Amino acid sequence: MTATIVSPYTSDRVDTFSNLKCKECGAEYEAKAMHVCELCFGPLEVAYNYDAIAARVSRETIQAGPLSIWRYRDFLPVKTDNYIDVSTGMTPLIKANRLAKRLGIKNLYIKNDAVNMPTLSFKDRVVSVALSRARELGFTTVACASTGNLANSTAAIAAHAGLECCVFIPSDLEAGKVLGTTIYNPKVFAVHGNYDQVNRLCSEVANTHGWGFVNINLRPYYSEGSKTLGYEVIEQLGWKLPDHIVAPLASGSLFTKIYKGFNEFVKVGLVEGKPVRFSGAQAEGCSPIASAYKEGRDFITPVKPKTIAKSLAIGNPADGIYAIDIAHKTNGNIESVNDDEIIQAMKLLAETEGIFTETAGGTTIAVLKKLVEAGKIDPEETTVVYITGNGLKTQEAIQGYVGEPFLIEPKLDSFERALERSHTLERLEWQTVSV
Amino acid sequence: MTATIVSPYTSDRVDTFSNLKCKECGAEYEAKAMHVCELCFGPLEVAYNYDAIAARVSRETIQAGPLSIWRYRDFLPVKTDNYIDVSTGMTPLIKANRLAKRLGIKNLYIKNDAVNMPTLSFKDRVVSVALSRARELGFTTVACASTGNLANSTAAIAAHAGLECCVFIPSDLEAGKVLGTTIYNPKVFAVHGNYDQVNRLCSEVANTHGWGFVNINLRPYYSEGSKTLGYEVIEQLGWKLPDHIVAPLASGSLFTKIYKGFNEFVKVGLVEGKPVRFSGAQAEGCSPIASAYKEGRDFITPVKPKTIAKSLAIGNPADGIYAIDIAHKTNGNIESVNDDEIIQAMKLLAETEGIFTETAGGTTIAVLKKLVEAGKIDPEETTVVYITGNGLKTQEAIQGYVGEPFLIEPKLDSFERALERSHTLERLEWQTVSV
Repeated sequence: MTATIVSPYTSDRVDTFSNLKCKECGAEYEAKAMHVCELCFGPLEVAYNYDAIAARVSRETIQAGPLSIWRYRDFLPVKTDNYIDVSTGMTPLIKANRLAKRLGIKNLYIKNDAVNMPTLSFKDRVVSVALSRARELGFTTVACASTGNLANSTAAIAAHAGLECCVFIPSDLEAGKVLGTTIYNPKVFAVHGNYDQVNRLCSEVANTHGWGFVNINLRPYYSEGSKTLGYEVIEQLGWKLPDHIVAPLASGSLFTKIYKGFNEFVKVGLVEGKPVRFSGAQAEGCSPIASAYKEGRDFITPVKPKTIAKSLAIGNPADGIYAIDIAHKTNGNIESVNDDEIIQAMKLLAETEGIFTETAGGTTIAVLKKLVEAGKIDPEETTVVYITGNGLKTQEAIQGYVGEPFLIEPKLDSFERALERSHTLERLEWQTVSV
Repeated sequence: MTATIVSPYTSDRVDTFSNLKCKECGAEYEAKAMHVCELCFGPLEVAYNYDAIAARVSRETIQAGPLSIWRYRDFLPVKTDNYIDVSTGMTPLIKANRLAKRLGIKNLYIKNDAVNMPTLSFKDRVVSVALSRARELGFTTVACASTGNLANSTAAIAAHAGLECCVFIPSDLEAGKVLGTTIYNPKVFAVHGNYDQVNRLCSEVANTHGWGFVNINLRPYYSEGSKTLGYEVIEQLGWKLPDHIVAPLASGSLFTKIYKGFNEFVKVGLVEGKPVRFSGAQAEGCSPIASAYKEGRDFITPVKPKTIAKSLAIGNPADGIYAIDIAHKTNGNIESVNDDEIIQAMKLLAETEGIFTETAGGTTIAVLKKLVEAGKIDPEETTVVYITGNGLKTQEAIQGYVGEPFLIEPKLDSFERALERSHTLERLEWQTVSV
């Protein structure tokens, strides 16, 4: 799995991507399964030929494409036309009027990847790209280190594509995330440790077995899938950029790739450029990026996670410093919230917009609320909040914090008594009392 | 909430629907909130002006519409243009090659409403229509009697639309279905009894309170939403009818409305007519329709449900006799399967296609398998199977029946030992042993 520095890679198709390139020193590598620069240990990114993309794509060609991330195919690092399309992407962008009113702002949108296909998180985007690339690089076994959503997605899409699959997760994950992986019959290894330990183990395994780890040796391809969360928002806003986005921060990769996606669409002339503020959300129990941001540091001090937002519980985030840089240069913010605020925000989003998100989405909405209250979001700004996963996967986080049903007999008078009782309580009070 | 027989209802718009009409005696009623004929007690259905629809719609007008069920707006019983669009519908139609191969057939498609928006079941279709109609009929409180999915959907879409919501469910529902309702903060009444008892109680409540029960007094509008599962399949097959469909049977309504949808598209010239076989799926523990079908009866004998397929557990199905009639006249079948077959089918679908369905979907796949093995599905037929709900909602049904993770330490040698052990077991054996 080693790679050597080569002259620009030429493929049999006029490709819009060519090499991998070090984000730090600029060294170029053949587009194989590797993710770290051999010269400076910086992360590798896919390099594109934007002139070729600009010549090929237009709003019309994109709109004529499939109803999935593959409508942005020229911006994705896959050479074959035989990519894996499981209808991932093109999730709703919802004008959240009822939530906006509760918060006191005016132009709020929710980008809802809680209903992304097939496994109800944004990870289906990155995995669709990674497994398509894995297949064309010749891998027959794919793997991942995951906090849960990535495991679900890798196992499901590998099953659909007929690839062998090995999944590594921390052993304390939510039941829904474990079952949402094992149902697809991959090999699952539950590691007695936190995500950062899982990740380190997987780096070793990637070196000793010839497997394609979507978020390790395939990471340069994998992470590009998140750019589609930028493209779709532009297209769904009627080919306009928003004024402000709020997104969750785990490794920081999603945040940087939305930024990259926005800039690419400006670069090739699909949308007019303008400033967009980038704000990031972390849970207090695992907020190494928010801490560094607040303290004005340009380095991350790793932490041991302890939060209900397990899908964000990465104590040593690989792209944290890049996220901080983007928040600074776009005049954004990075904030953190505690577990109680996360739970209240999950409920707020559900009862105002009918969206049931997992704890990561609660974190993002709670940070949105905090930023609005601190005057850090202008009420007039077009603000897009990214909801990245579904609440059915983290049920234990809110069990006991939502209203319980009134238990009644199948008789009218039993119902009427319960209804009478519910009327005597204020709505929120009722919800609390009946817990 | 009473209604009188009227001359054909005229609205202020050239509407494609006008009255309600009794399915049995043909008596017509104003399009209000009512569902039973006052003359013969037959069920009421929405009556359309198909000439007006044919004059207005074409494949092009539909394709230019929104990416939701509302692209078929002229076939839906809503007058306002201010309908509730929460991106419901346009779920994937997946060519299921890996599952087809395992079963020994060739042209199999899965219509996957396990990823329907916003609450991951086909009920989002019927509720979107019912609440849009409820709002234009002036209701401010909406309600439902539900086996779970309908409760999720009614609560979520009512929250989004800002309608008050009351939900009635049997008290023994799966935890995911209860939490997937309470999170939206409706009033929930858990009835100590089965669905049929819940339903009878709700009929009484509908008569005493001025609420719009989506599946009782709004049922004629509500049930029309299921037709979109017919329309979408035609459009997604490239404007062709399939040869055979397999769908689950609870009340029987979904089955009859797919049939109605197919026939409507033929009637207005959107697709060429041809015979389509309709086969229905029930769980043995609640199979009043399958029993009547097998015994050649034209009436349903109610049963007390006892099955893990709780979303299909309707012991006294309102549209059962209509479903039997359709199966007969299309040369289809109605079959039932036991709980173990349901679980095995859930696993089969997941590991071949990467789709995690709830028990209802397991029932449908198990019946598909049974029909193929009995030679009742031709291997060459274009067969469409309807998956109607998501597996994350019925996790308890398969806990203990799927593989458990290997628990390892965060060290390479611990992983290697576990991997070694997994190699010594056959794949299926491994899954069984590790339970």
